[in-house]
Amino acid sequence: MTTIKVIGVGMGEPGHLTGEAVAALNGVDVFFVPGHDPVADELSLLRHDLCRRVIAGHSYRVVDLEDPRRDRESPDYARAVSDWTLARATVLGTAIATELHGNEIGGLLAWGDPAFYDSTLRVLAALPGRSEPIDVEVIPGISSIQLLAAAHRISLTRVAEPLQVTTGRQLATKGFPPGCDDVVVMLDGDCSFRHIDPNGVTIYWAAHLGSTHQVLVSGDLADVTEEIVARRVEAKARRGWVMDTYLLRRTR
Amino acid sequence: MTTIKVIGVGMGEPGHLTGEAVAALNGVDVFFVPGHDPVADELSLLRHDLCRRVIAGHSYRVVDLEDPRRDRESPDYARAVSDWTLARATVLGTAIATELHGNEIGGLLAWGDPAFYDSTLRVLAALPGRSEPIDVEVIPGISSIQLLAAAHRISLTRVAEPLQVTTGRQLATKGFPPGCDDVVVMLDGDCSFRHIDPNGVTIYWAAHLGSTHQVLVSGDLADVTEEIVARRVEAKARRGWVMDTYLLRRTR
Repeated sequence: MTTIKVIGVGMGEPGHLTGEAVAALNGVDVFFVPGHDPVADELSLLRHDLCRRVIAGHSYRVVDLEDPRRDRESPDYARAVSDWTLARATVLGTAIATELHGNEIGGLLAWGDPAFYDSTLRVLAALPGRSEPIDVEVIPGISSIQLLAAAHRISLTRVAEPLQVTTGRQLATKGFPPGCDDVVVMLDGDCSFRHIDPNGVTIYWAAHLGSTHQVLVSGDLADVTEEIVARRVEAKARRGWVMDTYLLRRTR
Repeated sequence: MTTIKVIGVGMGEPGHLTGEAVAALNGVDVFFVPGHDPVADELSLLRHDLCRRVIAGHSYRVVDLEDPRRDRESPDYARAVSDWTLARATVLGTAIATELHGNEIGGLLAWGDPAFYDSTLRVLAALPGRSEPIDVEVIPGISSIQLLAAAHRISLTRVAEPLQVTTGRQLATKGFPPGCDDVVVMLDGDCSFRHIDPNGVTIYWAAHLGSTHQVLVSGDLADVTEEIVARRVEAKARRGWVMDTYLLRRTR
């Protein structure tokens, strides 16, 4: 039986890892890391670096995987993601077959937590047919939305009220979900909060959470929209890329 | 300035703690632990035990707090919770004023993550007036819903689709939220999944997550409803109490 550990690593800081994640990392023989060119790919470098910092007394190899590009021009988002998942599964399946020998344990690092908009488990489920099944073990990690709440010292939920976790695309096209006044938005490359009615809405926004580049803004949405758009441009310019997330809280 | 650290401790296993949480625990001088009678209250005992297991080389005190009872008979849930929050804030405020001296740092342990249906930050926000403000620092923890997903080896979200995090009461009274086919339910003391149309719905259920008492059931909701109800009764009988959570996933 081939074992693959999927390990949530938070934002990549060693302090975000749980004890179980550290133990799991120290039990992996071969890490599979997407990003063909580690020098060009900062996220790949961060994964290499994290392994170096938290693994002690256990030898391991890192196999860099070619990361197929998603078709970002496609009007059919679900189809583009599905094609991309299959392409990545083909690359990973080949790597597992050729690089994992005997009883060696494979490892995949997931940013944040594998349970929230992460592709790792989907790619594993799409692996091409194998002669023996793969045993997948999942270790949760701290998600960006938890760091968001901690940085702003707030709960994401209110008493007895629902919370929606959604994407920038959903918010931009459908607005506030019906019957739900607390919405956490992930995967938003386009400041989709600009497209909703800001009346009575407070936003808690953050970029580069848990890193030295962290930026926080909160306030009435109408008052801080321009500031967030500007701070996001700055944050992206400084680092070459930006990941941000936010909570919208509506008072009726 | 008085500093209080709110530390997410997952389900109370040391392996669930992040490195930042362990460091924070080791910097606290006085822990405030609700539960008047540590012998009678297993959750209080678990907090005492966790401190003993992860704090090394730093002396600390534990102050057990009387935990006012919530009015569980009240028809007005929000009001009952609000009254309860104020009563707990009064107890905590008195304890902070009398037990925290000079520059000592206070600590509160939150089960799971303080961002999901946890009262700790709400109680702190309701503290009676003080002469100086309190600096609150929050360290996220692994939530039961993340352990649920990891144990079932699933993502809580599907590609580009929203996820609702809600309570048993919301599910029982309002059913599946409109426009959302993935629902995680917390704080459900009553198996509220019995009250929805099971057609096309898969459930991923767990009790006592991350402990040796963990129980997992998944399958078509119609097929496994009875089994889950029975397993929950067993789990509660064995331990004297039960905490469970689940994901409902609808295929249309």
